[in-house]
Amino acid sequence: MICPDIILKKIGTIRTPYKDVSSDVPIQGQFHPGSDGYIELLPGYHDACRDLDGFSHIILVYRFHLCTEEKTIARPYMDTEQRGIFSTRFPHRPNHIGISLVEVIGINAGIISVRDVDMVDGTPLLDIKSYVPRFDSVAAGKTIKTGWMTPYLSGQSEPSTTRTRSENEWSRNHR
Amino acid sequence: MICPDIILKKIGTIRTPYKDVSSDVPIQGQFHPGSDGYIELLPGYHDACRDLDGFSHIILVYRFHLCTEEKTIARPYMDTEQRGIFSTRFPHRPNHIGISLVEVIGINAGIISVRDVDMVDGTPLLDIKSYVPRFDSVAAGKTIKTGWMTPYLSGQSEPSTTRTRSENEWSRNHR
Repeated sequence: MICPDIILKKIGTIRTPYKDVSSDVPIQGQFHPGSDGYIELLPGYHDACRDLDGFSHIILVYRFHLCTEEKTIARPYMDTEQRGIFSTRFPHRPNHIGISLVEVIGINAGIISVRDVDMVDGTPLLDIKSYVPRFDSVAAGKTIKTGWMTPYLSGQSEPSTTRTRSENEWSRNHR
Repeated sequence: MICPDIILKKIGTIRTPYKDVSSDVPIQGQFHPGSDGYIELLPGYHDACRDLDGFSHIILVYRFHLCTEEKTIARPYMDTEQRGIFSTRFPHRPNHIGISLVEVIGINAGIISVRDVDMVDGTPLLDIKSYVPRFDSVAAGKTIKTGWMTPYLSGQSEPSTTRTRSENEWSRNHR
């Protein structure tokens, strides 16, 4: 089977208060909402923001650029068990792609101010999608199951953590 | 500024009833729900599905592999105006990355059966994220704005189309 590499490019940089993985980065924006950041689009992509100010929320697609390992099984930050990587949002995953829903605060000259960031400062941006509930969320009334995360989301169990630990602690737990 | 290329790889193939772009592919699964498809994971990634059967929905991250152009402004399928590409889900976009929310029907030996597909058959898969409403949707009661799409989503205006047109028609409208 021929599987040629897929070559992508950075289209901008995500700026956040979290300078490195030891800066207590939220593992999900919604665990620690309200953190402000912004996107610096590269000059060729400023046009692409036209009409985006009509949307209250966007989905950022980015690269976990500090990750070097690609795991298929790993212990997620909030859990105590090893899990299949697709059932987690753990960054050390095939292709190191992250997605995060953020609120749009303002857009001006290729700078998009956003709220609820959960990335390390300097994260390379790959794409922006306008958030549309009909496309991106499961309709009210439909059954939704969230597997091993359910006790943590319902408050029945306390997550192991809701922020990335220091690099040292991360290494100790994941090697 | 140094912007090295980002090299990704296909981790599987998305199989759908839509054999090419002239096969009336839904522009969003939710416009024509119920279409069944499946994912064939490459052998190295079967493990990564562990625990995924606990989740009712997943977000597929994939490559619009038939797209050759990267536009910053384009007329979306459902609209009559040119729009900034980040405000659209149009495939001819920087990096040609697509995301789609689908329902999980079953998982067995590296095959994931899914519902509500909106990709062309043979689309290369880049990642799978378990869908978690708290992370991936805006909480009930918060204000959501959907810009130029609003009249189409509310039923106030009829979308120009809800399926991709034949390749010829697409070319006529977008060149």
